Amino acid sequence: MKRGKLEDVVIIGVGCSKFGERYNKSYEDLGVEAFEEAIVDAGISRDEIEAGWLGTFFPGFGGGMSGSSLADTIKLYGKPITRVENYCATGMEAFRNAAFAVAAGVYDIVVALGIEKLKDRQSRGLPRVDWHPLLIKGNTAPGTFALPAVRYMEKFKIDRKPLAKVAVKNHKNGAKNPKAHLRKVITEEEVLLAPMIAYPFGLLDCCAVTDGAACAILARKEVARELKKEYISILGIGLSVTSARPQFKPDFEYIGFPATVNAANQAYQMAGLSPKDIDFAEVHDCFTWTEISNYEDLGFAEKGQGWKLIMDGETELNGRIPINPSGGLKSFGHPIGASGLRMIYEVVNQLRGKVEEERKVRIKNGIGMAHNLGGPGSVACVTIIGNKE
Amino acid sequence: MKRGKLEDVVIIGVGCSKFGERYNKSYEDLGVEAFEEAIVDAGISRDEIEAGWLGTFFPGFGGGMSGSSLADTIKLYGKPITRVENYCATGMEAFRNAAFAVAAGVYDIVVALGIEKLKDRQSRGLPRVDWHPLLIKGNTAPGTFALPAVRYMEKFKIDRKPLAKVAVKNHKNGAKNPKAHLRKVITEEEVLLAPMIAYPFGLLDCCAVTDGAACAILARKEVARELKKEYISILGIGLSVTSARPQFKPDFEYIGFPATVNAANQAYQMAGLSPKDIDFAEVHDCFTWTEISNYEDLGFAEKGQGWKLIMDGETELNGRIPINPSGGLKSFGHPIGASGLRMIYEVVNQLRGKVEEERKVRIKNGIGMAHNLGGPGSVACVTIIGNKE
Repeated sequence: MKRGKLEDVVIIGVGCSKFGERYNKSYEDLGVEAFEEAIVDAGISRDEIEAGWLGTFFPGFGGGMSGSSLADTIKLYGKPITRVENYCATGMEAFRNAAFAVAAGVYDIVVALGIEKLKDRQSRGLPRVDWHPLLIKGNTAPGTFALPAVRYMEKFKIDRKPLAKVAVKNHKNGAKNPKAHLRKVITEEEVLLAPMIAYPFGLLDCCAVTDGAACAILARKEVARELKKEYISILGIGLSVTSARPQFKPDFEYIGFPATVNAANQAYQMAGLSPKDIDFAEVHDCFTWTEISNYEDLGFAEKGQGWKLIMDGETELNGRIPINPSGGLKSFGHPIGASGLRMIYEVVNQLRGKVEEERKVRIKNGIGMAHNLGGPGSVACVTIIGNKE
Repeated sequence: MKRGKLEDVVIIGVGCSKFGERYNKSYEDLGVEAFEEAIVDAGISRDEIEAGWLGTFFPGFGGGMSGSSLADTIKLYGKPITRVENYCATGMEAFRNAAFAVAAGVYDIVVALGIEKLKDRQSRGLPRVDWHPLLIKGNTAPGTFALPAVRYMEKFKIDRKPLAKVAVKNHKNGAKNPKAHLRKVITEEEVLLAPMIAYPFGLLDCCAVTDGAACAILARKEVARELKKEYISILGIGLSVTSARPQFKPDFEYIGFPATVNAANQAYQMAGLSPKDIDFAEVHDCFTWTEISNYEDLGFAEKGQGWKLIMDGETELNGRIPINPSGGLKSFGHPIGASGLRMIYEVVNQLRGKVEEERKVRIKNGIGMAHNLGGPGSVACVTIIGNKE
């Protein structure tokens, strides 16, 4: 049967708040910061927006439950607004569902906004976890991702050094990025000697826990042209979801994330593209090893060979396939519901050449990728954007 | 600018679990019960489903966080699955976003499943409310809806009798419905003398707190025809969202729910229909007065005249515009994330004549409506389905 395309859907504006410990800003403040940049970027007024999708993972402390939280944040009242949630892919899911509604021809201009306040939550005590399939068993995110990382290191005979190099690269990129959370250059030695969280992940192998918001304005291509807006097209989106049960285990034969492989294949197929067509990517580096697995799962390296990419500098800003020029979750930060949209913000701005000179990647085909991975690796979303023509 | 249609999207199967106190069934058990009925009804196998949308309001106690909860419930692994949440409109939102994705041409056959376990949650203590915009202020759902109800009664000079009649009607319908939660005929006197919860709402003016699940299988019309499936078309969907802040107040001039008016107008416009074209409706009777307001907000009566519909028997099973032939939230029950899909289940089966003989409504135009209202009246979703040709 025929496969649909999203080729009539384009991005006309993006925005992103400063990421970090934003104790002095509310949930709504952060959303406004990202939204204001996006509508100025798109050159539209709020009233031109016909519908919205909100990405927030944890409701609480000022917002996140229902579409009303987006309505109250940007004062967009009387419009259709949906909240979506899909673990760490929540932000990209807001974008994906917004894109479908535009492709359906129901709306001309819509907003996808991801907002998450994580620092206040932590400082006020962890949320109840008695409902959570993993946390209730005493497992944590580092512990979950550590299992396949250890198996990978064992099978492909590497030590912690390639992992440390991922952290060093992403901090180097993030240090050049004014909106990043942890703008600090770090050394391999610092990563290797940092306090151990869950072997093989030390403190500096783990991404930041961050407050932030990010936003994209989507439109029908025809409308964007009528309004003479500069735009970037959505070429492909894939989403794959698998079990998140406590007994769920990563695939220890494959040693990676089948959800990412599957989501990437969907996106490549919809776009009619392959990994070699991608100029650069923002990928989900929740832990340093996750980024190495992503290289492989997304098709940039064979399984078991990804660690060589970071050792050889191929994923550096000036490498063959730059990964996380923003600084990634590691340095830019990871406010869950915002991260996917923050990646799209970065990819759009890199494609336009609108980032700091010192962290620009080389644009060859004009095509970039964003990738989210959520839960215990059970949810992955991949978006390919660019202008093929 | 052109308005989109969902006319290429059809419903090919529906399912619904028994509603009630289902302590002996898990979150996943309930989902399976609804899903199995829906795929048997559609005559498809699970493997033909290309994507899913999950509606759950409160994650917890076995499921509800992320698309993985739907994957684990029906063992639909490696597919794109999204969780949506939009207060009490959560179930209909799962349906709406599923419809958009099919209309976009991206998937041919998809599932929308709503699951909610409320009884276990309550018996294990109320969830934390310190993040909730209303509950944290000590306000409750009955208290919130009581405010405009009192104002309505004052302005239009009615007592509690019309409200009581709504409860009596819905229990009468629900008593005939094997899947309903509270299958009990009640009298006006019982309603009026029941313990007071928040004036004017006594215990029997409030809907049931229920466990349950409901499901719809959607497809592209072309595909349904190829597969020779019987189907019901989606004619119109509207969603309207407004503020849910503590300082938000219902409109005391209008005395009703502008979100419902707006969502209904969107749905009527997309369908090219008006209230007189609707044969019957499932509406959100969270409290008895809410149903009266809905009559008016959905266009079945002028504002201030809705109470006459129930007094005159016009919304009874054999009346001019039967409302809640299922028993409604009041008697059938209200598992939040399932309710919208449960309404669609009822409307589809009434349109096909596949309900108990003693609670069949008269089908004239072959068009029915489902309506959800959520939060403090801040979210409303209206769906019109039927076969116009």
